[in-house]
Amino acid sequence: MEEVILREHERIDDLQCKGLKVIQNTKGFCFGIDAVLLAAFSQIKKDDYVIDLGTGTGIIPILLAGKTEAEKIMGVEIQSEMAEMAKRSISLNNLNERISIVEGDLKNIADICGLGKFDVVTCNPPYMSCGGGLVNPNDSKAISRHEIACTLNDVIISAGRLLKNKGKFNMVHRPERLIDIIYFMRENKLEPKRLQMVSPTFSSSPNLLLIEGVKNARPMLKVLPTVYVYNKKGEYTEQIDEIYGRR
Amino acid sequence: MEEVILREHERIDDLQCKGLKVIQNTKGFCFGIDAVLLAAFSQIKKDDYVIDLGTGTGIIPILLAGKTEAEKIMGVEIQSEMAEMAKRSISLNNLNERISIVEGDLKNIADICGLGKFDVVTCNPPYMSCGGGLVNPNDSKAISRHEIACTLNDVIISAGRLLKNKGKFNMVHRPERLIDIIYFMRENKLEPKRLQMVSPTFSSSPNLLLIEGVKNARPMLKVLPTVYVYNKKGEYTEQIDEIYGRR
Repeated sequence: MEEVILREHERIDDLQCKGLKVIQNTKGFCFGIDAVLLAAFSQIKKDDYVIDLGTGTGIIPILLAGKTEAEKIMGVEIQSEMAEMAKRSISLNNLNERISIVEGDLKNIADICGLGKFDVVTCNPPYMSCGGGLVNPNDSKAISRHEIACTLNDVIISAGRLLKNKGKFNMVHRPERLIDIIYFMRENKLEPKRLQMVSPTFSSSPNLLLIEGVKNARPMLKVLPTVYVYNKKGEYTEQIDEIYGRR
Repeated sequence: MEEVILREHERIDDLQCKGLKVIQNTKGFCFGIDAVLLAAFSQIKKDDYVIDLGTGTGIIPILLAGKTEAEKIMGVEIQSEMAEMAKRSISLNNLNERISIVEGDLKNIADICGLGKFDVVTCNPPYMSCGGGLVNPNDSKAISRHEIACTLNDVIISAGRLLKNKGKFNMVHRPERLIDIIYFMRENKLEPKRLQMVSPTFSSSPNLLLIEGVKNARPMLKVLPTVYVYNKKGEYTEQIDEIYGRR
């Protein structure tokens, strides 16, 4: 393992997957089950060129490197401290040959990387819109959670520009935004092909969704069985254990 | 009970709900769980003026008369034999004061009834598109199942024209059409507000969906817990027993 520097409030978390680790700032936004579910949901082949928009800690590229054979994964992050921390996590995992972290704005990344170059786009975007005005735009955690630096539509427009014909866009988001997601995806020629809801328990409403859109595909959606996170005893379900690779 | 005429191949089915009955033609399209789920999903108040598009046997108006206090329910049916049979079912149930059956085309019913007059529109439309050319357009069962007399978009356009501001559109359909449904609904100012998937078993993909759109509403979807039809023993679940009023 390469030697890495840890800064104030940073710690190294073990991802319990092929020895992979990630550096996180305990005062900042830390990854959750969302990222793990998105990495498991995304169907990626060896030769696929993958880009993760708003990569944060780099958690999704790192998980994809562990779970798939993808050899070319790019992570784009607008916050320079986050991008620098993600780069250290990539080094920590000796993944510099497979993953590159680019500091930049996802809204114009297609202008820099070129249009229609990627096979797969992944994104775990900020879920909350900025209606209230109670959000501090200088707060790193707020940028990860609220649509300050980019809106849902920005993400989808960018994905549409980055993807090749028949390329795949994979996103995790909140069910209450499903209508906007579907509407914007179709407007941008990313036809939704797979949809999966995630519910905390068997009797609760879903609180996350996973969606795949395929560029220029014909309409026909497959809705997958719901993922339930906890069983009636409050333990992780078999589905979640499988996703975490514990079965 | 009024005396009613039964024609060839017709039988009277007991709906197991407040003594309600429906006449069905055993050679034609008979109602299924879809209609029962839609009637249970639709939220209707006493003073609501309700219209059911493509009412067929009249099953949805009859169930709504049993399950709600609605006093003004109209059913529109394009096939004259079906409309006539539905009228006999309404008489059989002594519901002539609450339900009226109109023989007509849902595509121009708003021109006849007037724009923006209804509080609630319900519809259990044909699920299948007419791509294949294997469909006999003179077949009554085919008209109930395939988009021969109307397409999904026709239904949504008509609902948008019939509804008052903040009026509700309730539909049952197949999950593979969800993207078209959502896209057309938003295009016609029927913002989807409630969505519920229906799966045969706990581990299977959903094969039906229930959706409510509210005319001119703001975006914000509520996804309800999935309805499962059968439990692991192959019996109806408690959810279904409740919907059928057996608990």
